[in-house]
Parts: sequence; C-alpha cells; structure tokens
Amino acid sequence: MRISELSARSGVAIATIKYYLREGLLHQGEQVAATRAEYDDSHLRRLRLIRALLEVGRLPVAAIKQVVEAVEDETLPIHQVLGTAHYALGPTVEPEPGEAWDAALAEADRVVAGQGWTITPQAPTRAELAQTLLTLRRLGMSVDLTRYAETARRIARDDMDKIPIDAPRESAVEALVLGTVLYGRALDTLRRMAHESESAHRLGLVPAPEAPEARATGTDQSGPTG
Amino acid sequence: MRISELSARSGVAIATIKYYLREGLLHQGEQVAATRAEYDDSHLRRLRLIRALLEVGRLPVAAIKQVVEAVEDETLPIHQVLGTAHYALGPTVEPEPGEAWDAALAEADRVVAGQGWTITPQAPTRAELAQTLLTLRRLGMSVDLTRYAETARRIARDDMDKIPIDAPRESAVEALVLGTVLYGRALDTLRRMAHESESAHRLGLVPAPEAPEARATGTDQSGPTG
Repeated sequence: MRISELSARSGVAIATIKYYLREGLLHQGEQVAATRAEYDDSHLRRLRLIRALLEVGRLPVAAIKQVVEAVEDETLPIHQVLGTAHYALGPTVEPEPGEAWDAALAEADRVVAGQGWTITPQAPTRAELAQTLLTLRRLGMSVDLTRYAETARRIARDDMDKIPIDAPRESAVEALVLGTVLYGRALDTLRRMAHESESAHRLGLVPAPEAPEARATGTDQSGPTG
Repeated sequence: MRISELSARSGVAIATIKYYLREGLLHQGEQVAATRAEYDDSHLRRLRLIRALLEVGRLPVAAIKQVVEAVEDETLPIHQVLGTAHYALGPTVEPEPGEAWDAALAEADRVVAGQGWTITPQAPTRAELAQTLLTLRRLGMSVDLTRYAETARRIARDDMDKIPIDAPRESAVEALVLGTVLYGRALDTLRRMAHESESAHRLGLVPAPEAPEARATGTDQSGPTG
C-alpha cells in the first residue's frame, strides 16, 4: 500500500509516519519508484505498537526506539527483548550513595529473594524499588512489600496467561511488550479509581457499597449487576 | 531555622528551595529581618512532600503545584483534596469522538458500576480507562477488567488501612496523597519484576521457583525463606 493508505488505515497522519521513518521507529517501505515506497501489514502493526507505547504507555520516543530496536534484532533472545522493554518502561533512578540507600536496596533484594524471583542484577527495577522504600521510610510510612509482591506475582501470572508466548517471534514480543504496558496502565487506573471510592466511603461521604459477591446473593436486586 | 539549616535537614539545595518558594510550591517563611526568614517544621514537611511527588511520583511541577494548593486550601474537604491529587497523578487523555470511544467509555463505566464504586462523572480516570480499553481492543488483546478491578479494590483497602485518615487535616491529606503515589509506584515496580521473572520461567531460561507456601512446607529448607 502507499503511504496515504497506510495513514488512512492506521489513523496516523502522513507527516507523523514520515517522522517515525526518519527517527528509525518505523522500518522503511520497499522503494518501487524514485518517489514511491510500498508499505505492508508489518508497517501497520509497527504503527499500532508505536502508538500504544506512546499514547497509553506514555513512553518517551527514545525509550520506544530502544524497544523497537530490540524487537527488530532477531539475534536477541525474546527474554532479553522483553527486558529492554521493561527497563525502558521504568524511570531512571540515581542511587543515593550511603548507608540508608544500601539498606533499602538490601531490603528490596530480600523481597525479591523471598518470592524466589529471577531478576538480573543490572535490572533498574531494583534501584526503583529501593528509592520508593527509602522515601517511605523517610516519611515514616509503613509498607508491607511482601503483600504487594504476592499481588504482583498473581497479576503477572494472569497477564502472562493472556500473552501468546509461543506465537511467531515478532507477535510474541509485541504482545509481551504491549501486555506489560497496557495491563499495567489498566491496573494503575483502576487502583486510583478504587482509592477515590474507598476514601469517599471512609470519609463518610457516601454509604459503603455491598461487595459484588454479597449483592449477587441479595434478594431485592432486580437490575443487572454489571 | 534559617534557610541553610532547612537545606541541611531536608537535603534540598538552597537554590532549589528558593525555586520552590518562587513557584509557590513552598510557603514563605516568617520574615524576621530584611534579609532573613525563619522556617519551621511545616517547611521541612512540605519539602518532603514535594520531593516525594517529584522524585518517586514523577509528577510534573505544575501537577505538584495543584496538589499543594489543594492541601493548603483549608476550605476544601479532604476528599476533594485527594481527588485533586488523584487527577493530577494521571495523564490527560483526549477523548477520540466516535462510536468506538463511546463503547469503551461505557464498558469502563460498567466495570466501575459492577464494583459499586463511587467515582465522580468528571473523574479523568474514566477516560484513561476507556483509552486503554480501546487500545487493547484495536490490538485484538483480551483483558479481564473485572479481575483487575477486584485486585485494585483489595489493594486500595489495604493502602487505606495504613493511612491515618483521622489525623490532623494536613497530615491526613499528605498521607493520602503520598500513599496513593508511593504505594502505586511500589506495586508497579514489583509487577514489572514479577513479569521479568515469570517470562524468564515461561521461556524456560530458569526452572520455575516453588511458591513461597510450598517452600515453607519443604523438608530440605534449612535457610531463612525471606
């Protein structure tokens, strides 16, 4: 297809497509004439990946480029591609040298070890977790990381069940990356919604709702329950 | 205390403190001489709030300013202050007018209604959730939002249990805001760690670990299990 059709089918403006081509986010089309290139479904799929990472994942273009390069490098094992995506998703955390930082990092590592997780030593998530822990400690706030870790483990297993990990390489990688980004976004949004609702109830602004299970067994529920 | 002591105790550079004063993120000290202002514990606490929102929450300065103004406005009910923080935490999502958008928004509202949550109609989280849903649908990816919502509900309740909601107004508000930001960050980091580990195991790179429960009942576990 021509670039105009690629634009129409993807919903991405031609100027934006040209920008992605220049930046190397989107692979070049096949040059069929001096002024004309042909694009195919692989370009459509790549555009969907870029837009999802950009609009929903809120990744900076530089991080998306890292992910795309990892997806394209067929010599990279899938797990490493996913690692690149994971690492691009998180913020860059500068360690704050000192005893407090070392203690926080050690605590983060203990939580991971407690779950039996396999995390590479260079994973930036370790420093991320240490930073959050350090900040919580400084503020005198309590946190039960083991409980969060158990929740995270359940979520990750459910997520992975939905991802076709044995599909062809490119599809599997895309699904893994998108799943990590989009499911994470969905959960975070729902968590903030649940916080809004829970605080409304605890502050006594509205009566607490019955739990869905309880409502399902109620006798006076004639309407649909969602 | 003088600004030099405030800087030393908070770990925030004097130039940065002056910037926060100019931007209205930090309230002015008491002017005790033409060139000298006195600061107190309220400034220390505010600096901790700003740094936590900035460094761990990754909020832009404009969003932090909104949160701080809401914290300072004593006529605002706590719930509304929290709402301001929640809304500042999320990205700004532009609706994409059309049937697909309307359907996604309706689905988001059904999930919320199914949980019996109290969410204001103007909550930007509704559009956020709709955008994620729409993107997932376009990519042909499945998602069980009800399951995520149940998880989010449990997390929010646990989070709220840790927050002293009946403390003096300013402490309660700060704790609510910080809890939402920091606990969210901790969970998201752990989720990405669990993803990394889970994908390593599913791709067969390392043997799957026994679950902590299973390990606790093992017979040859002599070391601490975390």
